[in-house]
Formats: sequence, C-alpha cells, structure tokens
Amino acid sequence: MNGLNPMSGITKKVNLSRVVERINNFLSPNSSRNECVPFYVDYNQVGIVTPGVALLLQGHPEIFTVSSTSIHLNNKFGSCEERTEIIRVFLEGMKNSGQLNKALKGWRNETYNIRHSMSEPVLFRMERSAAGPFGVITYGCHINGYTYKNGEMMMWVAKRSPTKQTYPNLLDQFVAGGLSSGLGFRECAEKECQEEASVPEKHLKNLKSTGTVSYVHEDERGVHPEVEFIFDLKLPEDFEPINADGEVQEFKLYPVSQLPELIVQDSFKPNSAAIVLDFLIRHNIIIPDNEPSYCYLVEMLHFPVQSLFNKLPTEA
Amino acid sequence: MNGLNPMSGITKKVNLSRVVERINNFLSPNSSRNECVPFYVDYNQVGIVTPGVALLLQGHPEIFTVSSTSIHLNNKFGSCEERTEIIRVFLEGMKNSGQLNKALKGWRNETYNIRHSMSEPVLFRMERSAAGPFGVITYGCHINGYTYKNGEMMMWVAKRSPTKQTYPNLLDQFVAGGLSSGLGFRECAEKECQEEASVPEKHLKNLKSTGTVSYVHEDERGVHPEVEFIFDLKLPEDFEPINADGEVQEFKLYPVSQLPELIVQDSFKPNSAAIVLDFLIRHNIIIPDNEPSYCYLVEMLHFPVQSLFNKLPTEA
Repeated sequence: MNGLNPMSGITKKVNLSRVVERINNFLSPNSSRNECVPFYVDYNQVGIVTPGVALLLQGHPEIFTVSSTSIHLNNKFGSCEERTEIIRVFLEGMKNSGQLNKALKGWRNETYNIRHSMSEPVLFRMERSAAGPFGVITYGCHINGYTYKNGEMMMWVAKRSPTKQTYPNLLDQFVAGGLSSGLGFRECAEKECQEEASVPEKHLKNLKSTGTVSYVHEDERGVHPEVEFIFDLKLPEDFEPINADGEVQEFKLYPVSQLPELIVQDSFKPNSAAIVLDFLIRHNIIIPDNEPSYCYLVEMLHFPVQSLFNKLPTEA
Repeated sequence: MNGLNPMSGITKKVNLSRVVERINNFLSPNSSRNECVPFYVDYNQVGIVTPGVALLLQGHPEIFTVSSTSIHLNNKFGSCEERTEIIRVFLEGMKNSGQLNKALKGWRNETYNIRHSMSEPVLFRMERSAAGPFGVITYGCHINGYTYKNGEMMMWVAKRSPTKQTYPNLLDQFVAGGLSSGLGFRECAEKECQEEASVPEKHLKNLKSTGTVSYVHEDERGVHPEVEFIFDLKLPEDFEPINADGEVQEFKLYPVSQLPELIVQDSFKPNSAAIVLDFLIRHNIIIPDNEPSYCYLVEMLHFPVQSLFNKLPTEA
C-alpha cells in the first residue's frame, strides 16, 4: 500500500504523513503551541506570539499591552494608517538594534495586508519578514504546471536559486509567490507565471483556481499560519519554462508517478511538497484504496487556520 | 461579488457560507458540543455522545462505564466480535423498547466498521442507524457526474425518491452512498453509479478520486462526524442516467453557473450541496477573486473530524 493509483505504475512505499506533518509542526505535542499567546488588534485576533517575542513586546508598553494570556496593540492606534506606521517604526527599531534578527534579517520591503480573516477589512499593513514573530496568517499562490507526454501526466518542478533568502537550492512548485498588497489572486498567479517561468499570455487562459492548502508551522522565525491559493496550469507538451527573475536555477519535468518519492525528501521545500500532494490527491494519482492515511492527509492539507483565531467582545 | 468566475456568466449574489454552516452546525456556539462526552473503546475515542444518550447508557453499567467526562465500552468485551455482538444486543433492546427511536426507526440492517481513524483496525461493527447516537465517524462516497454541452460545463443533479427514509424529495448529488463494510472505495463508487444511475462499465474508467469533504453536524438523531470520499465522473454528452434502485425520482442537467443559487436552498440535501460547492471550487467556477469567504468555505469543507478524537493512555 503506497497510496498510488495502481494505474500510475509505481509501487515504492513512501510515508506521505511526513509531508503534512512537516508543514503542521505547530500542531505536534512538542511545539510551543500551549505557551503562545494571541495577538489582538481592535479585539480581532490577528496573530499568535511565542513567549520569547511576548517578552520583547512587553518592553514597549506604549505600543503593546502584554499579559500572560494576550497581547493587544494599543487601541489609541485607531486607523489602518496609524497602526501601519507604529508597527513600521517598531520593526525598524528592532531591525536596527539586531532584535528579532532571525526573522528580520530577511527584510524585503514588501508589505502584507493584515486582517482577522480574508473576508474582513485590512487592520494594518506590515513588512513581510515580520509575519513569523507576530504569527499572522500569510497568503500566497502556488501554481502546479503540468502536461502530458505520450499519455503520461508530467509535472514541472523548479529548483530554487542558491541565492534565495529562504530555502536555497530546494525543489519547489513550478511557480509560487506571496500575495502582496494590492494584487488580485489570479493577477498574482499570472504575474508569477510570467516572471518565474516566462509563461506566455496565450497559455495563461488555462490557469484554473482549485482551492487552498492551509497549515500552521513554526520555526526559529516564529509561527506561520499560512493559506496558499492553488492554481493548476495545463501546459502544451512543447512548452519549456524559462526563469526570468533569477529565483529559479532550473526546471525539470517529472512523471507524476515519481513525485511521491520526491516530496517526502528533505530536498523538497516543505509547503510546496504538500501542495504537490494536494495535486496528486485531486488528480486521482494518490487514491483512498491504496493510501491508509488518505483522510488524515486531506485534513492536514486543509487545517482550519482561520478557526485558530478569536474575536473578543469589544468591551473586553 | 458572488463567488462566481465572471466567465461563468451569472452574477446573482448568494451566501455560500450557509452551505458549509448547515453541515457544520455542531461547531456553532449554540450546538450541544460543550455538553457532549467522548465515547471510548479500548482507550480509542470512536464517538461523541450527547447528554441525553449518555443518561440512557448509564442505565447499562454492565456494558458502559459512564462518567461526566467520558463513556467507555466495558473492556471485558475484548475482541471485535465480542464488541459487535454486545452492541448489537444492546441496540436490538433499544429498538424493541422504542428508545433512541429518532435514530433507530431508520434501522437498515447494514453495518458500519467502527475505528479510531480510517487507517486503524476495526474495533467493532455497528448498525448504520446507530451512528448518530454514538457520534461515530461515518464514511460515504459521492460522485459528481458532469458533462459539457456546447462548451458549457453541466452537472447532473438527482431528486431523491419520496420514499427515501432520509431527506425524501430533496435535490442530491448525481450518485452517493454510504461505505458499507467490505467494499473498497472505488468499488463502492462504481457500484453506486451502476445502481443509482445505470452508468455503463465503459464510462466508469473516467471515474476520478479527488479527495474528501468532511464536517460535523448534529440533529435529533445525534452527532454526525462525516467523511465523504469524492469522485468526479466526466460523462459523454449523450449519456442519460436512469435510476435502477428506486432511490431517485429524476435526474436533471444544470449548467454549473446555476448551481450556486441552487445549493443554498433548503431543497438541496445539505451534505450534497457542500460537495457540489467543493466541485465548483476545484473546477475554477467559484474563485477567490470574487468570493470573500473563499478561505472559510474551503476550510469548512475539510473540517478535521479525525482531530476531534483522542486516544487515552492504556493505563488511564
């Protein structure tokens, strides 16, 4: 039992649970989950903060009200613009004094919109590299690029540039990127396809939205509840991706039957491996008849990150 | 903003959150969730029991050990066969004395395999209509039957027979059924396609497994954590389903653009409406650019029901 559709031709057994557990390590019993405190802005939880970061924020009582059970951004910062500005000033100070360095050394001058949930108003905007310390939900888009050769389904896999700030040299989705402020979902996916793989306009009409993959992981930078918007892009057999922004060192085409073995390896970027797994499940490659953990895999690819976050009564 | 891909041609605004909230009413603040107690067999949680049912089980201390925080099947029933037998005897007694009548009046002489999770051994088998009172996870398969007419994607919708025990006359998936003991997932889906819609063998090769939809609802019968295995079946334009088992009164073909309005109505069976929603999301019909609750919808279509259930240390 290896999870593969017998028609896909490969019988090597792989432990696919590892793929979803790597990205959901915040849910494991030895995570810092039980010591973390919620971070609220205007009574809306927007993040999860580790004890170490909480201690640091406690040193700035004019900005943050820190207790053992919660952190609130001071309500005197009442508008999106005021909050964006005070958080920017705070983070610049942290960066200049070398604090939160594991996260802020990746400073990108790229801002994320922060809200309680995707369907609610933007509460403030924040430098992308500070997402981990505040444990805010971040959003990205991932595009599965696939084609058929001699009737066999094949998927394009990228190898990240050795100079990428995060996960250099690892295998990755065909195309992926963070959702920056101001771009639509499809617009973002199309832009990334053009920049990262030189997909011509005429092929972009095949781009199909297929759902999300969501999970919570933690690392030295902080807590990362993430929602990735997933697109599938069927490409012509003769299309060859060419990287245009220096973020990818090479693209390689794999038969889908080889992907289960590949995505369980440490050489594959963890969240991208999970998104390949989602693709294999949606496309009848990994099937319930052959994969005992099928239900668990699907559940853990869709962890309800928005349900982690609460709202407080405004008279709290 | 109505969630539809603008290319699908329809602009009527519908509240799709209703579709996922109907099937997840156990998660709403006014559910009985906080009063329910876990049901354990051999230290594995296999169910969730409401206070009313717990009181009833308390009257049978030779079978169940009931406290304010848990219910255990007596460990003297040590094998799958012994547990199956004692539960059968208990349920026959309930049925004959008219207790648990809201659930057991639907007695089907059809058994479910009960386990802690899909990847673990069967702990016992139980009459299907008793699933609600014990709050065990049940599994089913749903098949989305679709085709294209003049380039437009169309979906087959069934209308349930007026004589069905549950949800008579409601609109439903093309084909759906419970996973009974002893059948494989694909085997079950194929059998249901043949019995419910007379799909010929030659079309069944197009049946594709695409994941699961999972949720927890409660009703007068009890608590229902459910996992549905989802298949898509692309059918030729000239295929017409014919019901062979009397469970369906008619089949009707709808353009996918009309489905959002249809699935929010009370005339659509709640879990089948959610599975149509999952189909529309996976097939680029409902897209994040136009649906503010997109993330919430995807999360609530994949509630991690297996994570509701605990294991106890065996020396508890």
